Amino acid sequence: MSIIEPKTLPGFLELLPEEQIEFNRIYDTIRKNYERAGFVPLDTPLLEYEEIILAKAGGETEKQIYRFKKGDTDLALRFDLTVPLAKYVALYFNQLSFPFKRYQIGKAFRGEKPQKGRFREFYQADIDIIGDGELSIMHDAEIPSIIYKIFKELDFGKFTIRINNRKVLNGFFAELLEEEKAREILRIVDKIDKIGKEAVALELQKLRVEKENVEKICSFVLIKGTNEEMILRLESLGIKNEQFTLGLLELKNVIRYATLLGVPESHLNIDLTIARGLDYYTGTVYETTLDEHRDIGSICSGGRYENLAEYYTTKKLPGVGISIGLSRLFYKLMEMRIVEPKNRTMVDALIIPMGEEALDYSMNILKRLREKGGKVCISYDKKGIKQNLNYANKQNIPYVLIIGETEMNTNLLTFKNMREGTQEVLSIEDIIKKLS
Amino acid sequence: MSIIEPKTLPGFLELLPEEQIEFNRIYDTIRKNYERAGFVPLDTPLLEYEEIILAKAGGETEKQIYRFKKGDTDLALRFDLTVPLAKYVALYFNQLSFPFKRYQIGKAFRGEKPQKGRFREFYQADIDIIGDGELSIMHDAEIPSIIYKIFKELDFGKFTIRINNRKVLNGFFAELLEEEKAREILRIVDKIDKIGKEAVALELQKLRVEKENVEKICSFVLIKGTNEEMILRLESLGIKNEQFTLGLLELKNVIRYATLLGVPESHLNIDLTIARGLDYYTGTVYETTLDEHRDIGSICSGGRYENLAEYYTTKKLPGVGISIGLSRLFYKLMEMRIVEPKNRTMVDALIIPMGEEALDYSMNILKRLREKGGKVCISYDKKGIKQNLNYANKQNIPYVLIIGETEMNTNLLTFKNMREGTQEVLSIEDIIKKLS
Repeated sequence: MSIIEPKTLPGFLELLPEEQIEFNRIYDTIRKNYERAGFVPLDTPLLEYEEIILAKAGGETEKQIYRFKKGDTDLALRFDLTVPLAKYVALYFNQLSFPFKRYQIGKAFRGEKPQKGRFREFYQADIDIIGDGELSIMHDAEIPSIIYKIFKELDFGKFTIRINNRKVLNGFFAELLEEEKAREILRIVDKIDKIGKEAVALELQKLRVEKENVEKICSFVLIKGTNEEMILRLESLGIKNEQFTLGLLELKNVIRYATLLGVPESHLNIDLTIARGLDYYTGTVYETTLDEHRDIGSICSGGRYENLAEYYTTKKLPGVGISIGLSRLFYKLMEMRIVEPKNRTMVDALIIPMGEEALDYSMNILKRLREKGGKVCISYDKKGIKQNLNYANKQNIPYVLIIGETEMNTNLLTFKNMREGTQEVLSIEDIIKKLS
Repeated sequence: MSIIEPKTLPGFLELLPEEQIEFNRIYDTIRKNYERAGFVPLDTPLLEYEEIILAKAGGETEKQIYRFKKGDTDLALRFDLTVPLAKYVALYFNQLSFPFKRYQIGKAFRGEKPQKGRFREFYQADIDIIGDGELSIMHDAEIPSIIYKIFKELDFGKFTIRINNRKVLNGFFAELLEEEKAREILRIVDKIDKIGKEAVALELQKLRVEKENVEKICSFVLIKGTNEEMILRLESLGIKNEQFTLGLLELKNVIRYATLLGVPESHLNIDLTIARGLDYYTGTVYETTLDEHRDIGSICSGGRYENLAEYYTTKKLPGVGISIGLSRLFYKLMEMRIVEPKNRTMVDALIIPMGEEALDYSMNILKRLREKGGKVCISYDKKGIKQNLNYANKQNIPYVLIIGETEMNTNLLTFKNMREGTQEVLSIEDIIKKLS
């Protein structure tokens, strides 16, 4: 038989076992916190009718979609988890109760040019709260507390949730210039963190924004201070615009209630430069950055939108949500050695039976330890103690139980701590205690 | 804007929230038991190079594969989890340690004609143990104990793990007739449970098996008795064939050690009719049936094979594994009302603040309950007590906490048990105890 070279598609993340264990730890932490906040799980298909997927796509995204025909049907792989959610809520509207809170952690596909840290198949971990007609601003305040709990528990170092409100920006710009330009300005201002004030000013001038206004816009988005100071500053601007006033009230409430829910000021900052490029967002917007690795960009973003599913239903469905780009985040964390999967293992202890006579006894020990929830294996295939200890080491297994004639006669087992290189003789009851 | 009708592809399972919660419970139980037995997680891409996927496919399967081109690359969606495992082990051979024990729970795709309980996108939940060159039969004995623990815990009613050994069948047939026919006979005999002895005898006659041998084959595969009786019967047949002898020894060991690991005879039966159609299997084979729903067919099957990855490497990689067809199983369980997701919920308790004045207090209670691991939500959007209780009912939320002026003054909350329709006044400490 001729051999086909085994290979994985470029841009498709495929992990080694110890990396996968670490990836799953992050996945599980996110899932647990989403569930604790009362979100129900969804798991929509990876494939949809092409027309469903294309409804919202456009421009660059549309080119990146994996589309194909099977029989007479035009199909597409989803490129995010929002389009399937919109379809789902429109389709099952009558069977759902609102506000509808769902989480989905799953893969999406974009045929981008593969580059470091950019994947064609990638996990997203999303939550959204969808209202029927309207949705309280209080949900916007709960979101930072969920982000806070997740990244506090994951412990990737100090992080900051940056928060803003699109109405505040829109209202401010509307006072200065016509609406059409305001949109363009939002897109430019969003980049100030990356490209700097000078470059932003230059781009604004190219847009023919008057010099005086360029200065005003830049000073506005660069207002700094504590959250309280910033809200006072914004209030003292004396802007009478209705949008601005509403946005500022929302921002104030979101900060106030997020703080009440335990998010410390050290981890939650109003940042007027955050605009989130998409037109989609209409109120609160969030970004999250690792303070010592701001170059990674936002690790958790989202915001409030007016209408989730306008392509699939005439019902007005406002929502607020966030997304964690899990594959990209994981890749970056590994690259920067913020996570080190090197000694992850799935096995707490390896039982080494010394010869076939020890098999029955070993099986019984295995049974008892697994019943207590221990992740334990017997080594059946390796011969001799040395080969077995090497195997345990290579697999990062922390404990080894050696079972030979002496052990079976005395019911006391040799218990080796592989990391510390120590060894004791213990009863099975003591070993159960050690492993739990 | 014109509305696109929201719809999901036929043959693509999409669940309602309460169904998804129940599905995830099953998923998590399988995962936990796979992990406890020391299997590491894998999560290979859903898309692969077409040539990788096609290497093993053939006949009907090949037609069902979702294949397409993106740019210059021929791609295919995986149709099972075995092909990606074979590629993975061949590709990362030098970075893995053997025996390599992995689990993977993920989706696969087959463009079958959609029919009840058959899906085009479906979950499989697989474990495999792969050896480098050789692999102890003891791994075959651990498999039934894993199946046993999973379905015992899932509690879908009495089940039976049926076990056989292909070498026993092959060896027996080899004594009666030429090898080529033996293969065909395996395929026919495999159906005896479904189509009955008469129909099998008829098919065997069509194959020009002598009448005398047809009788011998049918009586052989229909040998019944306790596991011990059956092994004695098989030993007493006096068959000298080497394959048969080896197979019988393996079968004996698998039964003996699986029993030692705690699988009761009531749940583990030797069944000589089990052949598993595929040529792939070479030793132990497993099927699992729900005793009261044998028409569902096998809910967990697998076996021992000689060579996992012969298409991708010249290394000999024997293995043993099983697969649970999770989507199909779940659909059947719902259809037969063995699982009833009706009152599944993600929320333990709903806090109802009576007016805006109660929001601060409610937020504080929410914070404390979530810190203790409670899945708790505040109702922000519904007005009035009645609308709120309806919402809690519709979402199957078991407990409701009402917070009004009295509650805030006394620090004693109204705690309503929605299922029993009772109501108490409790301190927050008592509520924490009730919810945990």
